[in-house]
Amino acid sequence: MAEVLITSTQNPHIKRLQALQQKSSERRQQGLFVVEGKRELAQCVKAGYGIEALFCCPSLLGDEQLQAWMATQLQGRCFEVSETLYARIAYRGTTEGVLALVSPKPAVFSSLHLSESPLIVVLERVEKPGNLGAVLRTADAARADAVIVCDPLTDLYNPNLIRASLGAIFTVPCVACSSDECIRFLKERGIQILTAQLQDSHLYYDTDMRRATAIVMGTESTGLSSQWREAADAHIRIPMLGEVDSLNVSVSAAILLFEAVRQRM
Amino acid sequence: MAEVLITSTQNPHIKRLQALQQKSSERRQQGLFVVEGKRELAQCVKAGYGIEALFCCPSLLGDEQLQAWMATQLQGRCFEVSETLYARIAYRGTTEGVLALVSPKPAVFSSLHLSESPLIVVLERVEKPGNLGAVLRTADAARADAVIVCDPLTDLYNPNLIRASLGAIFTVPCVACSSDECIRFLKERGIQILTAQLQDSHLYYDTDMRRATAIVMGTESTGLSSQWREAADAHIRIPMLGEVDSLNVSVSAAILLFEAVRQRM
Repeated sequence: MAEVLITSTQNPHIKRLQALQQKSSERRQQGLFVVEGKRELAQCVKAGYGIEALFCCPSLLGDEQLQAWMATQLQGRCFEVSETLYARIAYRGTTEGVLALVSPKPAVFSSLHLSESPLIVVLERVEKPGNLGAVLRTADAARADAVIVCDPLTDLYNPNLIRASLGAIFTVPCVACSSDECIRFLKERGIQILTAQLQDSHLYYDTDMRRATAIVMGTESTGLSSQWREAADAHIRIPMLGEVDSLNVSVSAAILLFEAVRQRM
Repeated sequence: MAEVLITSTQNPHIKRLQALQQKSSERRQQGLFVVEGKRELAQCVKAGYGIEALFCCPSLLGDEQLQAWMATQLQGRCFEVSETLYARIAYRGTTEGVLALVSPKPAVFSSLHLSESPLIVVLERVEKPGNLGAVLRTADAARADAVIVCDPLTDLYNPNLIRASLGAIFTVPCVACSSDECIRFLKERGIQILTAQLQDSHLYYDTDMRRATAIVMGTESTGLSSQWREAADAHIRIPMLGEVDSLNVSVSAAILLFEAVRQRM
């Protein structure tokens, strides 16, 4: 199916792929990121992302229809890789046989199409790609209108993030911006700001989430900045009834988002 | 503080520690498991687990009170390890400086003390230690009476499980048993069985969880066995409104447990 068979990690295309997998600076400079897996690739194509190049191991992929599609769509940019090489470049073992270089879409407010009473998740200074990915997966299930990451310490196209999201990075509209910009955006549109915090807060299920709502969460270690706590329309908390006194941010997001779903249904 | 300073991975105590970290068969045979970190150790001691031996790197631990306590309590079983060695044997880098060998407590029904209207989480054939750990962390926050793991494919004292639980493995009563035994236990006590499944199910928030309740969940890949679906008093589902159509088991547990908390408060 592909024009070229690559077998070595010394091949310049493979070197480029690995640099993009490993370094956010490379992703930023080249304006590309790596998508791995058939399911993720399908979601990515469906969401209208542009594919720059494709690396495929036919014996692992086994999907002839997909192979034919790729060969037609990506003439000259579709590379066949050996099974041994695929095992070295894939993050998830050798199960799926497809990797792609993809162009990001701009993660800006003007790309959002919000519903009448939007439900938005805001994460301040999120650090762990896996956590952001898990929040995206939950936001997809709750059909949140958007996830906004403020002053993030990870980029949106980190391989661990894409993997943890199970492809929800392609189905949930995402914006990366500063907290200032985000607060302005929400205030201008009359979207209520509910900050998740333990101090001076109401129980989350006593709070009306039927109107346009942004649920704002900080990091597990330091919580939210005072800027957000002051910008809030209400502070909400999940009751912590145990001894460990801590919930993962994606778990907290799930509890709060599905309470909004419950109230709205 | 300790009587012996160990610097090599060839030391028999260190070899034993590493075997216990790596193999569930060793943990079973020796009747010991490994706890890492100050916070986890404190929870473990508080919960009444017996400490068999302790490995400590004083320059990393830095807590003189704890060091003095350990030296008194664990005479002859407290080993000092060098900073270099600690970095090699610890799973979480060199931040906390303490590892312990601990005796498990029996994970059996007779050890449970249930409240009047217990709230129980049942996981069938859970495979990933990290998922079980995350469910325990959530069960702690919701103050569930117990987590019961039926026909588990991981042991309760896997290091990744302990780490993901943030110590909740020591605060949440846990039972490991067969599905048969569990169903009998729940039926005998009149605890309603709610199985999480997509087919033939009611929305979870339309289900009364104020009475004695067990929430039963299967694996992400294969779901629940027919045995559980048939034993159920009701089938419940979380509405999946997105495209990825999947939630992590600890996220699903959180949504269902906190709905029970909401209804009960």
